[in-house]
Amino acid sequence: MAQLNPIIGDLDGNTRKIIETLDIARERRTQIVLFPELTICGYPPEDLVFHESFIDSIEQHLEQIIKASSGLGVFVGLPRRNFDKGEKHLLNSAAVIYDGNLLGFQDKWLLPNYDVFNERRYFSAGYKTRTWEMFGKKIGCVICEDIWQNAGYVTDVRYAEDPIKALVEHEPDLLVNLTASPYQYQKPHIRVKVCRKAAQTLGCPVLLCCQVGADDQIIFDGYSVCVDEKGNLRQLGKGFKEDLMTIDTDAPACPVPFEYCQEKDLFEALKLGVADYCRKSGFSKAIFGLSGGIDSALVAAIAAEALGPENVIGVSMPSPYSSKASVDDAKQLAENLGIELKIIPIENEFKSYNETLSPYFKNMPDDVTEENLQARIRGNILMAFSNKFGHLVLSTGNKSELALGYCTLYGDMAGGLGVIADVKKTTVYDMCRWLNQKKEIIPQNIIDKPPSAELRPNQKDLDSLPEYGIVDAVLQGYVENYQSIKEIAQESEIPLELVMNLVRKIHAAEYKRRQGPPALRITKKSFGVGRQYPIVQGWL
Amino acid sequence: MAQLNPIIGDLDGNTRKIIETLDIARERRTQIVLFPELTICGYPPEDLVFHESFIDSIEQHLEQIIKASSGLGVFVGLPRRNFDKGEKHLLNSAAVIYDGNLLGFQDKWLLPNYDVFNERRYFSAGYKTRTWEMFGKKIGCVICEDIWQNAGYVTDVRYAEDPIKALVEHEPDLLVNLTASPYQYQKPHIRVKVCRKAAQTLGCPVLLCCQVGADDQIIFDGYSVCVDEKGNLRQLGKGFKEDLMTIDTDAPACPVPFEYCQEKDLFEALKLGVADYCRKSGFSKAIFGLSGGIDSALVAAIAAEALGPENVIGVSMPSPYSSKASVDDAKQLAENLGIELKIIPIENEFKSYNETLSPYFKNMPDDVTEENLQARIRGNILMAFSNKFGHLVLSTGNKSELALGYCTLYGDMAGGLGVIADVKKTTVYDMCRWLNQKKEIIPQNIIDKPPSAELRPNQKDLDSLPEYGIVDAVLQGYVENYQSIKEIAQESEIPLELVMNLVRKIHAAEYKRRQGPPALRITKKSFGVGRQYPIVQGWL
Repeated sequence: MAQLNPIIGDLDGNTRKIIETLDIARERRTQIVLFPELTICGYPPEDLVFHESFIDSIEQHLEQIIKASSGLGVFVGLPRRNFDKGEKHLLNSAAVIYDGNLLGFQDKWLLPNYDVFNERRYFSAGYKTRTWEMFGKKIGCVICEDIWQNAGYVTDVRYAEDPIKALVEHEPDLLVNLTASPYQYQKPHIRVKVCRKAAQTLGCPVLLCCQVGADDQIIFDGYSVCVDEKGNLRQLGKGFKEDLMTIDTDAPACPVPFEYCQEKDLFEALKLGVADYCRKSGFSKAIFGLSGGIDSALVAAIAAEALGPENVIGVSMPSPYSSKASVDDAKQLAENLGIELKIIPIENEFKSYNETLSPYFKNMPDDVTEENLQARIRGNILMAFSNKFGHLVLSTGNKSELALGYCTLYGDMAGGLGVIADVKKTTVYDMCRWLNQKKEIIPQNIIDKPPSAELRPNQKDLDSLPEYGIVDAVLQGYVENYQSIKEIAQESEIPLELVMNLVRKIHAAEYKRRQGPPALRITKKSFGVGRQYPIVQGWL
Repeated sequence: MAQLNPIIGDLDGNTRKIIETLDIARERRTQIVLFPELTICGYPPEDLVFHESFIDSIEQHLEQIIKASSGLGVFVGLPRRNFDKGEKHLLNSAAVIYDGNLLGFQDKWLLPNYDVFNERRYFSAGYKTRTWEMFGKKIGCVICEDIWQNAGYVTDVRYAEDPIKALVEHEPDLLVNLTASPYQYQKPHIRVKVCRKAAQTLGCPVLLCCQVGADDQIIFDGYSVCVDEKGNLRQLGKGFKEDLMTIDTDAPACPVPFEYCQEKDLFEALKLGVADYCRKSGFSKAIFGLSGGIDSALVAAIAAEALGPENVIGVSMPSPYSSKASVDDAKQLAENLGIELKIIPIENEFKSYNETLSPYFKNMPDDVTEENLQARIRGNILMAFSNKFGHLVLSTGNKSELALGYCTLYGDMAGGLGVIADVKKTTVYDMCRWLNQKKEIIPQNIIDKPPSAELRPNQKDLDSLPEYGIVDAVLQGYVENYQSIKEIAQESEIPLELVMNLVRKIHAAEYKRRQGPPALRITKKSFGVGRQYPIVQGWL
């Protein structure tokens, strides 16, 4: 099982990686090599597949792979033209190759079209199945979602077909699955359960080969699965890394325990998100505002591990309302992490703007305008470093702020990647405490002090917002679980009016989020990819 | 035919409008009232339909409409729960009401899932059809896309069904269609042709009732259609306005000519886009940078007509590199349009930033950093006015700039709405010349001078870019028509290498566009809604 990390659309690079894997497989005397879903182009290729020249090129790359397959059986994923019936001109398929020959294609039956998935936009559904004979075994092949229906884990969709059941009469000796399945915080076990159920239905071992790596917002965690014919977990791919797994399906059973730490996985996921964004688009260094608050502290810790501390630059940009303690906290954090810290006061710019604007704002009190100005000056300074030196600006806002619009468009929202933009504030605290378990990485004062944007004298988040425990309960209920306002109020014992007020803020901030940087997705419903709400609307 | 302009999700407001329409219909002694697709919630409601409480509320509003329908037949669109088979829990339906009773529902068969349409994300496809008896007539009912297959105008999708053909055996006396069909520049006739074909297939008149109005990026142009049983155009709804059309299907034939001016329609479309964004979200005034260039000139003309010149504020923000002529052109334009002009030099802010950054940028030449700084200072100033006074900031960039990334993130890209962000530069010129046909609205000098960003001494667009005729040919070929680089080069006689270079720029600028404001969509492929490309990718 080749748990690979492709680059979307990099057909040459991905094909090279596939062919290198075949060479390694031969060295290891492997018979069959299984790749993830849409391996040749990476998942999700999105509208690239609408270009005829893109599909042409994939066909040519498939030819190279076929030529390089001598002595091996290969299952490799790709989009291909649909010459059969069906609404769309493409199919999401596995090419089945044996010893230099293309045996045929297995098409994906169940096309997810919910959350981050838009497969009906591109593909027609397959409807044929069979087994493929290789090395005296009959092998059944399905693609990603195809295996989920049988286990009953597709709760929001009622597919008419079950590709696993359809395979029963073909009596496969082995089932392989080509997968690209996104990471989700606190949900590690499901893919193993899904494989177990398929093994039990078919009475054969199941291999599920996952894509790994981050692509824009979506993080693929790896953890490819091998279960035996009884459904016992026999092997698990590495998390958040490429892994070429050699599996002996005839070896005696030796179940592996599934060890899991949810904080570690989340940290690894975000790390991979930052690392892959940079590596795949050619950034080597990252820069961001290091305010001395907890959000940028967590981002700093993630970036330092993702890129190496020598490639990470924090910038403390005190305004007249910043406390000395904040700068000190930023210094201590930078020292703990070994990252560079620049201290660039923004008083002069703030003064210039205020002078320029004062004739127009005469007799008007300071308000959110002046707060946003400070945030935007900081955004500009970071972008200037980005323009001058080619560093990637990381945006440090968390999901709770983004939910309520407690953030400044073109200010603290500026940046190429929202590292913790799908992490709720309460989870930010959990993560920092977890990071500090062995030794103090995040200075304790950053964790202990009350959160503040420091954009006006003595400002505290709690002046404008309820406690983050309340914010996050409403955010989770409304955004992630589609609960009604009544249900949230009842379940969480938050007053109905407060829930309503927060939900209205969530909708009202849609315009800001639409212009936010891509947010690394870690929950079942992130802002951005997978969530589509109108900006201008009158609901609630 | 009630060609209405609903607000997405404003169930109370939309229902009030529907019921008022029923009252007017009774006054006019109308028998049957036809509304657009998904009238009760407006189209497209997007993920709002995932909230059970939203669907509950739509059911309650439908009850009110049924109660208000005495003496009338009514076809009104709504999303409703699917208790039948099918992948999704919802259907896109017409409620068929007669004299205070719900006769039943007609469900949409053909669910578009391409370009801006994601209907498979929400809905299962209907598969039953029938006619509905009202006032001695048998009425067939279909929804939007359902009528297109029969005319052969669905070119990219191969639907298995044809709901018009399925109606033939039911011998309807009249066909009604509930529609929400977006405006597209230079494509006015298609809906009439589609109705003509259905009339010919069924041998009965066809009424196609369109939603009108703008919702975020999408503009619905209205122009509801009535054709007689031979397919002759008998009545056409107003463009870009609500229209309660009274139609006598028994009156003698009197075909209306289809008059059409593509520039006027485009101007009306963008005007409606600006007007509806403001009206539906509570903005009364708009503000934007008035550089003296052609793009902001066109936006000023659109905004002045959309909101009234008294509600439009242009801001000229000269930097050290701005020419006096530019400020003069801005002054002349503001005078021609009767809008307010503020002149706010940005030298002080630019100086402050340069002083702050100089220790870090020592011995490095000025480059795009300093250019972007100027654009971002301007963005900040506009946003400060927005924050202080509640004005909407309009972004004035055109599609050609956005395509190539020849624009500054958080700078000239800042704003709540991209007014001409789907208008190619060559079309911007066409529009300004058209505006000046009767009298000079856009000062001729603005049209004649070579385009320049004026962000460094003597800068001209042509220093960095090929002529806009070339840029736009490649943009249209690659982005709008999915042509290959080879095809574009052959067709337009642009050197292959230059085409490739521009296409690479288009992909490379994806990260900027992802954070741009919503762009009013006027072509068949705009940036933003309806176009989904990875930011990090290796194709080409």
